[in-house]
Amino acid sequence: MKMVNAARMTCELAARRQRSGALRRDALAQEEMAAGASPRHTNRRSCVVMTIGGRHRSLVVALLLYSRWCAMSDLYPQPVFLLGFGGVGRALARQILAARARHAQRNRLRFVIVGVADSASSIVAPSGLSDAAIHDLLERKGRGERLADDAPPPPPDSLPAHTIVVDTTATAATVPWLMQAKARGMGVVLANKLPLAGDLSWWDAIADARARWETTCGAALPVISTLNTLLDSGDDILRIEGALSGTLGFLSSQLEAGVPFGQAVRDAKAKGYTEPDPRQDLGGLDAARKALILARMLGYRLEMRDVAVESLYPPEMDALSVDEFLREADALDAPMKRRAAELTAGGRKLRYAAEIADGKLRVGLVGAAPESKLGSIRSSDSLVVFHTRYFSDNPLAVSGRGAGQEVTASGVLGDLVGLSRAMRP
Amino acid sequence: MKMVNAARMTCELAARRQRSGALRRDALAQEEMAAGASPRHTNRRSCVVMTIGGRHRSLVVALLLYSRWCAMSDLYPQPVFLLGFGGVGRALARQILAARARHAQRNRLRFVIVGVADSASSIVAPSGLSDAAIHDLLERKGRGERLADDAPPPPPDSLPAHTIVVDTTATAATVPWLMQAKARGMGVVLANKLPLAGDLSWWDAIADARARWETTCGAALPVISTLNTLLDSGDDILRIEGALSGTLGFLSSQLEAGVPFGQAVRDAKAKGYTEPDPRQDLGGLDAARKALILARMLGYRLEMRDVAVESLYPPEMDALSVDEFLREADALDAPMKRRAAELTAGGRKLRYAAEIADGKLRVGLVGAAPESKLGSIRSSDSLVVFHTRYFSDNPLAVSGRGAGQEVTASGVLGDLVGLSRAMRP
Repeated sequence: MKMVNAARMTCELAARRQRSGALRRDALAQEEMAAGASPRHTNRRSCVVMTIGGRHRSLVVALLLYSRWCAMSDLYPQPVFLLGFGGVGRALARQILAARARHAQRNRLRFVIVGVADSASSIVAPSGLSDAAIHDLLERKGRGERLADDAPPPPPDSLPAHTIVVDTTATAATVPWLMQAKARGMGVVLANKLPLAGDLSWWDAIADARARWETTCGAALPVISTLNTLLDSGDDILRIEGALSGTLGFLSSQLEAGVPFGQAVRDAKAKGYTEPDPRQDLGGLDAARKALILARMLGYRLEMRDVAVESLYPPEMDALSVDEFLREADALDAPMKRRAAELTAGGRKLRYAAEIADGKLRVGLVGAAPESKLGSIRSSDSLVVFHTRYFSDNPLAVSGRGAGQEVTASGVLGDLVGLSRAMRP
Repeated sequence: MKMVNAARMTCELAARRQRSGALRRDALAQEEMAAGASPRHTNRRSCVVMTIGGRHRSLVVALLLYSRWCAMSDLYPQPVFLLGFGGVGRALARQILAARARHAQRNRLRFVIVGVADSASSIVAPSGLSDAAIHDLLERKGRGERLADDAPPPPPDSLPAHTIVVDTTATAATVPWLMQAKARGMGVVLANKLPLAGDLSWWDAIADARARWETTCGAALPVISTLNTLLDSGDDILRIEGALSGTLGFLSSQLEAGVPFGQAVRDAKAKGYTEPDPRQDLGGLDAARKALILARMLGYRLEMRDVAVESLYPPEMDALSVDEFLREADALDAPMKRRAAELTAGGRKLRYAAEIADGKLRVGLVGAAPESKLGSIRSSDSLVVFHTRYFSDNPLAVSGRGAGQEVTASGVLGDLVGLSRAMRP
């Protein structure tokens, strides 16, 4: 009884210190110790406990179990269903596991993964998969195995009602399922652009207050949240310009430097900057989808066919195989050289940019003034510039790494925390 | 009866279109018309209604009143108390009034101003001041009059329990009042840096989930929200660097261009870039306060005395009057020229920057590589760069106009909307 009281006191003290926001490292240490980590991993403060522990091992074990229980008992369990278990989906699962202590401490939150589905198979556990089971799935999927024997994802009504569904696929095939989930009151976090850049009726059904899509326009860069805050604040957005494709940013800088087009494309592919078929990047569709999402947030009722997209190859070349295209791309050297020269006259910088203004949307090559935001980013950076009533002379710009599986997953995790906080009853 | 049914149908249709997020302009038009604006202000769609209205005036009036009532009835009334009614406070009040239609449409929200206090007087109306009364206060205060005869702000317990208090003052005198308000469960939005950059016990009492302070580090630039999302996402922040003072940014660029220090200071003051006493900027304290707030968000338990601040004038000059200081500033021309030359060797750019890394915080002059984020901003821009685990090679940067009353007020309004949404029962 005395022991339990001592444990309770220590525990309450820890809780009070935790509330003060001071002792993130203590919380981590507690979590690690409870998870069986060596005391060497703990920090100075916890060493006190360890020292006592050397003499009173049973007290320390009771204390740790009780503190673990205290910490668990007022965590909000947020069910999460992962739709897509490719690079981003798996990075997300790993990050969820790795950030458990932080989510407990900062947000009193514990993500409970209630299922995982890929294109071929799925596994569902309404009461939550254990962390060990998730590690196991990560390993199996990493070896190229299937998740389970079952086929497609289960209907959303087999999941808890307040589940958040995370779509990290790159297909529009998830749309009907997402709509069912939304209709059941579930939350949705999208890294998948297609549901938001497809038919307007999809947008209307999905893009509401119970949805987040930060990573659809530049990975974890705070583009969507910034636009939402600008809209909330009562500012007027006059123009948005952006460099939304790292691949085309690299290509533009190569062209600007005088590298022939065909060579630049083959280099980009060799470096792994392009999709397996580089025409998927060169066509500009991906950048156009991102811009369309921003335009729709501004209230413009546009479809993809309304976007003026400059493709960096002529439509005739769509019929070629990838290898044929890569060989024949040299035929575009001369016209691309002319276009680049035209746009970079007077020291301007060649960029592949999106522009949204006056309800119109264009994606293509531009010549940017070298001192402008667009002109001064590094070629591989993503950038979005908001010209608004209040940000007119010095527009608001967000820039940085706008692609990559780990960084995208971290952005999805940020969305998950935010949406969970907003949906918490 | 028929008329009311027609009105209800039109109204429901409008509501459905509104929900679809499409017709912001319709909503605005409705609001304007209901407020008695001329039909010429309305857009094409509303013209249809107007045309019918020409013939059936009473139907249109009934329709508008009914739709106005529908729109009002499910708005969430958010009480707001304004602590401070200077430039930012008044701009905020004007923006709240101007954005009413937008807040109703985007967030089903109506801000109810339950009181206003400045350093000398206050006025309180727990059921809310009318928009006309607020306009009247704005005019009176604009003419230099007092708000009312009453003296200090009323105790927080005379306000509704779920009030959000907005502090746009620049004094630490509000701290006890803010603490009382927090203890009563109220929300707090701060444009005032002092409560967050003062004693750590203030920070602990104020900086929690019911507080927002986006505008304390660069006006409406999304610096605080970005940092919070990075922390939520599980990313690790390795280093933050920032140019957090437009005034010192301007001065640095002048020094870099060879303008003597004394001259540059007098120019900056003449252009209205500095405080009435330029030493308030030159001392670096304001930039240091902003950096301290960011550092505390990272979990560092630092006080102002822990910050290494480079002042651009020696402490002996604190004893001078403003005029004396401006005259004698030329004595600093030579040493400042040497320091600038040292830092800008090899084409580097002179910046007054903050750096937070490894629990240490420094604010002062640096020489930035011209191709770096810090080196490539315009002198009057504010900038914050986050170097993190996921944003390492291409750090995440937020830049743009980081000062100004209107833009700061818009940032405060963004905070108000966000916090109201988070606190809504």
